[in-house]
Amino acid sequence: MTGQMTLLLVLDLVGTFAFALNGALTAVRAADLDIVGVVALAMTTALGGGIVRDIILDDLPPATFSDWRYLLVAAAGGLLAFTVARHQERLRTPVTVLDAAGLSLFAVTGASKALEFGLGPVQAVILGALTGVGGGTLRDVLIRQVPTVLTSELYAIPALLAAAVTVLATATGVYGLPAAVSAAALCFGIRLLGVRFGLNAPGPRTEPPRRTESGD
Amino acid sequence: MTGQMTLLLVLDLVGTFAFALNGALTAVRAADLDIVGVVALAMTTALGGGIVRDIILDDLPPATFSDWRYLLVAAAGGLLAFTVARHQERLRTPVTVLDAAGLSLFAVTGASKALEFGLGPVQAVILGALTGVGGGTLRDVLIRQVPTVLTSELYAIPALLAAAVTVLATATGVYGLPAAVSAAALCFGIRLLGVRFGLNAPGPRTEPPRRTESGD
Amino acid sequence: MTGQMTLLLVLDLVGTFAFALNGALTAVRAADLDIVGVVALAMTTALGGGIVRDIILDDLPPATFSDWRYLLVAAAGGLLAFTVARHQERLRTPVTVLDAAGLSLFAVTGASKALEFGLGPVQAVILGALTGVGGGTLRDVLIRQVPTVLTSELYAIPALLAAAVTVLATATGVYGLPAAVSAAALCFGIRLLGVRFGLNAPGPRTEPPRRTESGD
Repeated sequence: MTGQMTLLLVLDLVGTFAFALNGALTAVRAADLDIVGVVALAMTTALGGGIVRDIILDDLPPATFSDWRYLLVAAAGGLLAFTVARHQERLRTPVTVLDAAGLSLFAVTGASKALEFGLGPVQAVILGALTGVGGGTLRDVLIRQVPTVLTSELYAIPALLAAAVTVLATATGVYGLPAAVSAAALCFGIRLLGVRFGLNAPGPRTEPPRRTESGD
Repeated sequence: MTGQMTLLLVLDLVGTFAFALNGALTAVRAADLDIVGVVALAMTTALGGGIVRDIILDDLPPATFSDWRYLLVAAAGGLLAFTVARHQERLRTPVTVLDAAGLSLFAVTGASKALEFGLGPVQAVILGALTGVGGGTLRDVLIRQVPTVLTSELYAIPALLAAAVTVLATATGVYGLPAAVSAAALCFGIRLLGVRFGLNAPGPRTEPPRRTESGD
Repeated sequence: MTGQMTLLLVLDLVGTFAFALNGALTAVRAADLDIVGVVALAMTTALGGGIVRDIILDDLPPATFSDWRYLLVAAAGGLLAFTVARHQERLRTPVTVLDAAGLSLFAVTGASKALEFGLGPVQAVILGALTGVGGGTLRDVLIRQVPTVLTSELYAIPALLAAAVTVLATATGVYGLPAAVSAAALCFGIRLLGVRFGLNAPGPRTEPPRRTESGD
């Protein structure tokens, strides 16, 4: 295994663990789920982004299914979070921080793997962001929330930035652990600043939108 | 076609029919759908799990699209259920029983096909369960219900058990029609006992969870 | 590039643009989204159907990711719609018309591409319809609406018709720009007539269905 591949694997597993914790805590906070539901939502959140990435890249079966370490880390994160979930009133901050960590790491690994598989730079940036937001979007759809990527303060933008830094670092030959961690830290910082200060990308200049039940 | 392949096909088609009936009856019960919506939901429920399985296994186009029998069985099940759906007040039990049948059969065929395609035993168990719960999860997302796999009494656990029995039977060389039917019957029985007696896997020890609209 | 491939590309890009405008306007109408959410929903709507089609056909990475023109057209459509979205009260009609245009064009290109990849005629018709309804269904799931394909007046039927005309024209050797445009126009016309006159496919003969929160 090359150094690049090892780096990808390690960052991927850390992101998987962060998203598994996040998914499980979200399941406890937002819905009345038993242990199976909690672990299922943890694994969906943790593995969803990478599965989408690997389908798009035609790297099938996805790493999740050909490498048992992903499954183990995702299940362990879900079970761990389930056991500590009784301290429910304090879950809001860890849920947000863990989601930002998974988002950041997967944006980097998604972009990096896309380049390895021959995608162009723009496509790699978009697939990186998609990898970052994929698991959380599946999580939100399953528990019937409008996905964070559509509504929340600076969520897709930091993921796109981290992926862009990864692509730039690879193009200039300086990609490695320091560059990958810097790219992830940039995304992580912007995301948490956005949450902390309620920053939003600009909205359309309209009257307050109505929520409608039917599309036409 | 080998005996193993024929067995897989037959069980798959029976599961497809059960899920098609279930999807159509669910559409009539839970949402105000016309014939196209009923058949569309029937086909999504019936074919969704197998399509997810075949994407993960890189067996594309999925069996659904390369073998017309799946499409025919799914559409026929949807139309049949549509025509009998006027007896709406009695749909609750058949909906549950048909869902349990599809879940059981697809858990077995998913695990069996995963082994044929070279996945490891743990991965085959998980992919079997995913095949079983996949179609119903798509169904629930489309009609805006929280998926049964996240909330319901003993849903993922019997699917995992059926897949595990399938993997064990294959590893010990006794897999065949009797083993496959036994594995499916085990899942089917546990699922229906869970529904009948309201059994649940243990939940987290927390205050009653709140439903929130936003993830952070 | 053959003439057939060029035709497919051009129709695909026009459909992508229509769906991108539709997705962005839907985002403004139905949910309180900022510019990132609007563009994300525009791109999901515009690219979702083609990605599903290409996954099923095992043509990976999807055209979207290997051909930058799709990404550019989708993003441009989303940004354009965002800038004009202040005239919110007049969005209902364009949202419906643009959705019908995307539906029609993608049904034709989906069926045409399915035939090129060796699928049988029935499968090509179904995959064409799936390509047409796929992006809008993802859009509706993300903003928590029951998908139009399940509930709306004549939505899947015109898509199936357009795909069937495409398959017939190809089988009889007359497929080309005129046939493709005719097939799309047929779907477009029926869809808009259905919306205008509130036509519905027949519903099941039952008491008024109840909306339930739980599947069993």
